[in-house]
Amino acid sequence: MLESMRRGSSTCVFREMPVIVSAAAVCGPKEGKGPLGPGFDLIYKDTLAGENSWEKAESRMARQAVEIALAKASLSNNDVDFLFAGDLLNQITASGFMGRELNIPFLGIYGACSTMIEGMGLAAALVAGGFARRAVAAASSHHDTAERQYRYPTEFGYQRAPTSQWTVTGAGAAVLANEGSGPRIESFTAGRIQDYGIIDPNDMGSAMAPAFVDTLCRHLEDMSRGPQDYDLVLSGDLGRIGSTVARHLLKEKGIDLTGVHEDSGLLVYEMTPEICSGASGCGCIATVFAAKVWKELSAGKLKRVLLIATGALHSPTTCQQNESIPSVAHAVSVLGV
Amino acid sequence: MLESMRRGSSTCVFREMPVIVSAAAVCGPKEGKGPLGPGFDLIYKDTLAGENSWEKAESRMARQAVEIALAKASLSNNDVDFLFAGDLLNQITASGFMGRELNIPFLGIYGACSTMIEGMGLAAALVAGGFARRAVAAASSHHDTAERQYRYPTEFGYQRAPTSQWTVTGAGAAVLANEGSGPRIESFTAGRIQDYGIIDPNDMGSAMAPAFVDTLCRHLEDMSRGPQDYDLVLSGDLGRIGSTVARHLLKEKGIDLTGVHEDSGLLVYEMTPEICSGASGCGCIATVFAAKVWKELSAGKLKRVLLIATGALHSPTTCQQNESIPSVAHAVSVLGV
Repeated sequence: MLESMRRGSSTCVFREMPVIVSAAAVCGPKEGKGPLGPGFDLIYKDTLAGENSWEKAESRMARQAVEIALAKASLSNNDVDFLFAGDLLNQITASGFMGRELNIPFLGIYGACSTMIEGMGLAAALVAGGFARRAVAAASSHHDTAERQYRYPTEFGYQRAPTSQWTVTGAGAAVLANEGSGPRIESFTAGRIQDYGIIDPNDMGSAMAPAFVDTLCRHLEDMSRGPQDYDLVLSGDLGRIGSTVARHLLKEKGIDLTGVHEDSGLLVYEMTPEICSGASGCGCIATVFAAKVWKELSAGKLKRVLLIATGALHSPTTCQQNESIPSVAHAVSVLGV
Repeated sequence: MLESMRRGSSTCVFREMPVIVSAAAVCGPKEGKGPLGPGFDLIYKDTLAGENSWEKAESRMARQAVEIALAKASLSNNDVDFLFAGDLLNQITASGFMGRELNIPFLGIYGACSTMIEGMGLAAALVAGGFARRAVAAASSHHDTAERQYRYPTEFGYQRAPTSQWTVTGAGAAVLANEGSGPRIESFTAGRIQDYGIIDPNDMGSAMAPAFVDTLCRHLEDMSRGPQDYDLVLSGDLGRIGSTVARHLLKEKGIDLTGVHEDSGLLVYEMTPEICSGASGCGCIATVFAAKVWKELSAGKLKRVLLIATGALHSPTTCQQNESIPSVAHAVSVLGV
């Protein structure tokens, strides 16, 4: 069994490909006004979303993304065997508190902004391996919870660095099943941690670019493919600066992403000066996938997509201790209908 | 395939059982002087372990647990397809920084004190599903990093509540493989989040007891077994008070654990008044398993063991916001040699 399901040393290739039978995205007002606006399933008019704290608002959005995704597929919570979820909050409490409401076996994961794709890859493996009929992957982030946890009190109004990224207020969820119709997950390449010595927590795109490059190269080698074998290579979320760094690093390796690469960090907002280098957060690629890419795969507009989500694995404590920023990138390839 | 590998709605039963070919535990001085002392592979004389911060010391212990476990099995890092790891630090940085040194595809997980068993369950599924030749699960904690992150500056010397638990300074790792000899993982039951409204962060045993009970009951039902079908049901880490609460809740359901139940929180230290209700932390059941239970399974002293690790999914922020403490428990059953 092993030989036919696993290629190279890093990529799981699924003989029985899990189907992404539905996906849903919930967001805040700023995201709703962005280019993806019409694709969201639920848009809140304010960032508290009817709760009394931003943390609870984030957790609510995560829960609703899961609930809407299940409803779209006419499934109830009892139909799901595993829920993989994570977020940026200390002790991933947005996910833990969301999971409390859903009564689905809960597997907490943490990969910073790579969390959604880590969850989709693990959920795919459990479904493809015959250990689950259905599994859900979900991830969330919130601009205001992230700002006050990672940076400054939100009231402070500090001057943002041009390399910084704007954390998405939103959540995405995807329902994977061993039957049904929809886009199918073909493979999963888990990332190895890379650290090029970047120490600036306001420049996570540069810190994460090497992880994107390492995972992309290993995936392409394992699958004996080039970038042109994909309609879309979607990174998330390198932003403008990280994308430039990544393309430069890839050029040195003779890999050219021209025409196939987009970054989810550049798709969520109009790129005003306030947004600086782009969007970020666990909710970034999660909402871009659910609100846009899943739909295009379902409609047959995209035939083969590589999703590579990158995460910076630092914390305020490690930055204060003068450590550099290790990063990781996880990839799944998805086939359209 | 699904029918034969999955029983009930919650438990994965592995037709091809992954072998735990090795396990290793590293700890600090207090743990080294405890009852498990002779079982540890490496004991540090001080809690800094040669580093300049407790956080780096924890990360070093985690890395060394993995390295020693691999060396015991005569394996190198390249022989491992996935590393599942997590810890209690914000953004699980002990694990992320450990993963940076090892160059193994890294999957970050978070289940608080349930992390080690979540990792073993997921690693087992990936090996049993044919997606990995070998996978490592690891978890760590550190008394001093936990105290200053969750409670008070360590210099403060506050009066500990009698219900509180002492975070283990240590790390454990287990190497799972699709061949070789050693104890075998028979099944994995992922937990559903339980919340009985406990709000005291100094009484996590009581908060976690309902999660232990829910997972135990679902596991026994799925497997059509009773507690007496196991030589040992090891919880981790309910402590003295949580164990009492759990047995009371089980009694109401007609389940009697007399003679088969031990709690890893009561095995690490001599139970002096300072330890209060017992040991805790991701490193608790991880080190108890590696330093004691794995050895007894390998020697045939134990024939069938159920490991149920519990985790409290709160954070200081959720406590400050007056939220109760949701908890989860994950279980794996392991067969001796």
